[in-house]
Amino acid sequence: MIIVMKAGASQHQIEHVFEKVRELGFQAHPIYGELRTVIACVGDERGKSRLQALDSLDSVESVVPILKPFKLASKEWKREKTAINLRSATSNGEAFVSIGNNQFVVMAGPCSVESREQILASAQQVKNAGARILRGGAFKPRTSPYSFQGLEEEGLKLLAEAREKTGLFIVTEVITPTDVPVVADYADILQLGARNMQNFALLKEVGKTKKPVLLKRGMSCTLKELLMSAEYIMSQGNYQVILCERGIRTFEDYTRNTCDLSAVPALKEMSHLPVIVDPSHGTGIRTLVTPLAKAAVAVGADGLLIEVHPNPEEAFSDGAQSLLPNQFEELMEWVKKLVQLEGRKL
Amino acid sequence: MIIVMKAGASQHQIEHVFEKVRELGFQAHPIYGELRTVIACVGDERGKSRLQALDSLDSVESVVPILKPFKLASKEWKREKTAINLRSATSNGEAFVSIGNNQFVVMAGPCSVESREQILASAQQVKNAGARILRGGAFKPRTSPYSFQGLEEEGLKLLAEAREKTGLFIVTEVITPTDVPVVADYADILQLGARNMQNFALLKEVGKTKKPVLLKRGMSCTLKELLMSAEYIMSQGNYQVILCERGIRTFEDYTRNTCDLSAVPALKEMSHLPVIVDPSHGTGIRTLVTPLAKAAVAVGADGLLIEVHPNPEEAFSDGAQSLLPNQFEELMEWVKKLVQLEGRKL
Amino acid sequence: MIIVMKAGASQHQIEHVFEKVRELGFQAHPIYGELRTVIACVGDERGKSRLQALDSLDSVESVVPILKPFKLASKEWKREKTAINLRSATSNGEAFVSIGNNQFVVMAGPCSVESREQILASAQQVKNAGARILRGGAFKPRTSPYSFQGLEEEGLKLLAEAREKTGLFIVTEVITPTDVPVVADYADILQLGARNMQNFALLKEVGKTKKPVLLKRGMSCTLKELLMSAEYIMSQGNYQVILCERGIRTFEDYTRNTCDLSAVPALKEMSHLPVIVDPSHGTGIRTLVTPLAKAAVAVGADGLLIEVHPNPEEAFSDGAQSLLPNQFEELMEWVKKLVQLEGRKL
Amino acid sequence: MIIVMKAGASQHQIEHVFEKVRELGFQAHPIYGELRTVIACVGDERGKSRLQALDSLDSVESVVPILKPFKLASKEWKREKTAINLRSATSNGEAFVSIGNNQFVVMAGPCSVESREQILASAQQVKNAGARILRGGAFKPRTSPYSFQGLEEEGLKLLAEAREKTGLFIVTEVITPTDVPVVADYADILQLGARNMQNFALLKEVGKTKKPVLLKRGMSCTLKELLMSAEYIMSQGNYQVILCERGIRTFEDYTRNTCDLSAVPALKEMSHLPVIVDPSHGTGIRTLVTPLAKAAVAVGADGLLIEVHPNPEEAFSDGAQSLLPNQFEELMEWVKKLVQLEGRKL
Repeated sequence: MIIVMKAGASQHQIEHVFEKVRELGFQAHPIYGELRTVIACVGDERGKSRLQALDSLDSVESVVPILKPFKLASKEWKREKTAINLRSATSNGEAFVSIGNNQFVVMAGPCSVESREQILASAQQVKNAGARILRGGAFKPRTSPYSFQGLEEEGLKLLAEAREKTGLFIVTEVITPTDVPVVADYADILQLGARNMQNFALLKEVGKTKKPVLLKRGMSCTLKELLMSAEYIMSQGNYQVILCERGIRTFEDYTRNTCDLSAVPALKEMSHLPVIVDPSHGTGIRTLVTPLAKAAVAVGADGLLIEVHPNPEEAFSDGAQSLLPNQFEELMEWVKKLVQLEGRKL
Repeated sequence: MIIVMKAGASQHQIEHVFEKVRELGFQAHPIYGELRTVIACVGDERGKSRLQALDSLDSVESVVPILKPFKLASKEWKREKTAINLRSATSNGEAFVSIGNNQFVVMAGPCSVESREQILASAQQVKNAGARILRGGAFKPRTSPYSFQGLEEEGLKLLAEAREKTGLFIVTEVITPTDVPVVADYADILQLGARNMQNFALLKEVGKTKKPVLLKRGMSCTLKELLMSAEYIMSQGNYQVILCERGIRTFEDYTRNTCDLSAVPALKEMSHLPVIVDPSHGTGIRTLVTPLAKAAVAVGADGLLIEVHPNPEEAFSDGAQSLLPNQFEELMEWVKKLVQLEGRKL
Repeated sequence: MIIVMKAGASQHQIEHVFEKVRELGFQAHPIYGELRTVIACVGDERGKSRLQALDSLDSVESVVPILKPFKLASKEWKREKTAINLRSATSNGEAFVSIGNNQFVVMAGPCSVESREQILASAQQVKNAGARILRGGAFKPRTSPYSFQGLEEEGLKLLAEAREKTGLFIVTEVITPTDVPVVADYADILQLGARNMQNFALLKEVGKTKKPVLLKRGMSCTLKELLMSAEYIMSQGNYQVILCERGIRTFEDYTRNTCDLSAVPALKEMSHLPVIVDPSHGTGIRTLVTPLAKAAVAVGADGLLIEVHPNPEEAFSDGAQSLLPNQFEELMEWVKKLVQLEGRKL
Repeated sequence: MIIVMKAGASQHQIEHVFEKVRELGFQAHPIYGELRTVIACVGDERGKSRLQALDSLDSVESVVPILKPFKLASKEWKREKTAINLRSATSNGEAFVSIGNNQFVVMAGPCSVESREQILASAQQVKNAGARILRGGAFKPRTSPYSFQGLEEEGLKLLAEAREKTGLFIVTEVITPTDVPVVADYADILQLGARNMQNFALLKEVGKTKKPVLLKRGMSCTLKELLMSAEYIMSQGNYQVILCERGIRTFEDYTRNTCDLSAVPALKEMSHLPVIVDPSHGTGIRTLVTPLAKAAVAVGADGLLIEVHPNPEEAFSDGAQSLLPNQFEELMEWVKKLVQLEGRKL
């Protein structure tokens, strides 16, 4: 932590800061510049927000952190990449998937679970095209209270049935702490949506389970904040976090969001956790999903999360950004070629 | 709702949209332009997201809503301003406050309840200066899992003691649905933080109580989205919602957030609900709080939410943006003058 | 300047940075932390972008500037406020205005000069209401090449006639370096629009004149960048710069821009230059102009820039955000009261 | 254009709008909804900003354009893709490049022309790796007046010498209208920087030349605004415009900008013009340039603009985002493979 004193700070004020720094258990090194005094504080500054609080002193211009505020999620704490392994045995045989490894993992399916027929058809379609994980929302966070709110536990049961029939793993969203046990009973991966990235009570709750967590970036959150939210989950003992870029809010209005693909290599510079991309929410427009999905492979993502619907114009939600099954097949052909080019497997 | 067809849409495609519109219970009026056909759909479009879903058709360029997506929160539904009245009887006598009326209401106090001594001192200080409502967090949503998370129910008890001693009303944050009953037991107003503006499970839960709700704007949310979140609460039967502008995230980095004061008159054009401003979070810098607070009065807010701490450099959170008690007094002098100028009372 | 080395940087790499820092004329102070080495560079870092360039070394994590990058515009260089004085002698008598002083200065008029009749009527109306400076565009920067581009020199002549008739001073925009001489011939203040805030050739050119410059903040520019643009003008010898907040681009779409009133006290903390607010562009909506203008007075601005049009529905540009003359009069009544409250004069 | 009347607009007000619409040469079709009246205006609305101006009427809630505001740049005006062909004959033989075609074109070189030695070495290096066009700034738009401002005409001469020696074409920036003739004398492509995207005087001036123009997206501009700026150039008779995504400003601070790769397919949906990507400015970080460049190929760009410097730590500008020559070679190996996969050539 570097404390920058205001120009004209008195010796008395500087000494006051010195004392404070030492009280908090850090060493203080002054550097007297031409116009300003700077105090370097040596010690592990993470989790010590009270050092940051020195910016409340009138003599202090700013407090500049040097270390990143997350630890367990950082590459410094764990240099080798984290791989998240899923295993299952269903009537469809045994299945194994590893996310964050040499394998490129595609998760696909409809936005919402709407009916038995719809989810089973979707599951079979995305499986045939090469997806390994089925997505589908049973609890839906909707911006309007008047919109379809999901089939809830009934939807979870349908997802479990689809898993049993196809051997696909299940990723589905949980939106409030009290629902965590029931969703964890059915799902292989717990999804936390963009609007819940800083729902700290929910982060803590999923951190207490043993299920992998797919954590979506908040729509106006920085990558450091995303990693702080991962840290929340990990600080409870659950280290299986998958980060997901799903588009951020900008002033561009042609697309629903701006899909920030630089997030992928940037997160990999900072963290050991796997990173996937959701180009469906990332763009909000069906015709842009395939180009962005291809770009996500090329940029180095560990996987994709894609909305596919057998009949988008009848979809209860997100029809405009859902691929048709045959479009998804074509995309998967591309994904295979690109993944091979990099010496990876699907 | 206006449906804009793509240039070159065939007569067959146009008719398909027509049918869909009618199936959904709307009248369809075509307008054949030089380059495009436009279909005007007549009927109440709110709550009918499936009409919006027609943008998933390849022949449709865009679907433009005409009505605002909220109803109960809108001025069209209720033209007269909503006033939220608080009444209490404590050892300090009877108290009454009305928010959204001719009265300008100041809520003030520390970011967090830290100790009995701190909260009782703060309460007395802000009361003496003219505040009517005491703020103080017992459940704290913190971006780091390693930061102080609040005194929880113990904090609520201290707030209740401060109310009993001063006659101030209490506003305090609730961060997860299961805590709503306990917070509602102690607080006069339930606060929903910016990061929870779209925590829909929490919105529904506070909507089921009879306590007024102070709803903060999400840091990258639009005013329409804020009103949709108010609609969530109101759709559960609780119409006592106070909207709060607390700064939005922009690329400006001198301030912690950008306090959007145009939100006040803009919300009042769209809604009948009271609107207050939080210049402490809105700026994040102590020296900017007073000018922005004055501006908030001038722009027409119904009240202010201000952080005041007896000793900011020892604060567990938000020290840098907390006013000192004497600074708060000076601010209140200004507020009084400005409020009088507009023929209002404090 | 603080250079943060990457974790694991070798002693050899640290020494290489040391050498580089010394070669560039700075003293280097190392601080060896638990996880990282930090090098504090002592010396005046401004204008020395090559020190910043050390972030191109693989061993360097980041380079953190301590000093602000502007000098002439900063409060450290000049502590007392700058006042910009205008004097004239017309058939209307002598006039004097001082911007950045105890005087609150209102500049008003139509977006564009459209005709002799329109500009003379506007001038008289705004003068009667209490404005001291007439605005009106003769060279118009328009986002569409098919929109009205301004009356050019003919417009300047009409502005000069309006000055002669009313004694108002003239502020008008210049959009390209070659037009600077002709605009400077007619205008009292040269206006640089938001889209030209970083038109460096134009900044240099107006820096070579002796006319005061009204510099608008770019729509996605930070306050530091605004002050760097002021520095450009000042570095050419022209110290008469008036800063103008006119709204920044955010994701909010109810308003045309988000008027950042915290810019006023923030700029006054960093700089000695006067700061005015343009609530017309700041909001883009007529009904919001008056509340934001009042707030701008309360927040401590030195003046206002307001669009007023005798007949907005016939305006060639910006009709929707122009006040009607009687609305402007009402606004001025408020401004007078607020200005008096602060012990200032209009 | 759709005009939405306010709820409660009187019949008289509706008729007034009708008349206005007809006066402006459009047909007006009313649609009477349950809560609002909407007036559809039929006719070509582009270039007719005065219809938009009806939003200045108090009875009008909003005016919603249906057509995009650009014409010459739109796909409706020209369905087939535009290819921009460059031909030259130098001592190095004849050269031909086509941008916007099946060919993928790489433009590379240093940020600034710094010396004869530097630019000639850079040119040879990028040519050897497979680039076809040399970039290098002679006129530099710098945010600080104290930074290196470029070698100006001397730099242009060095670029011409590099072309003569290598057969590479030259792209270089022009920053003010008066420099257009001299830059056009030396360059094969005129570059307009992000900060000049809405420098309308400059747009018009390059529109009068016969040289292709590389137009960079402004850092907070939408794609529609980018296409409006292309329209400015085209409206002067120069149809050879290359669009360039170079990152937009967001609240993310890990990267210098957020490279919006969805801009590529989105622009191709709206326009016939070629689109390239600049991942150097798009990210600002050397280690992110290669992944983003690969993603740009996969997303369907027509080419890349990349900063390469023989010795980045000595670069006068942008060292931190410049690739080393060997890194550029490795990138080009990837580009070749990806381009082949799509059946394209380099």
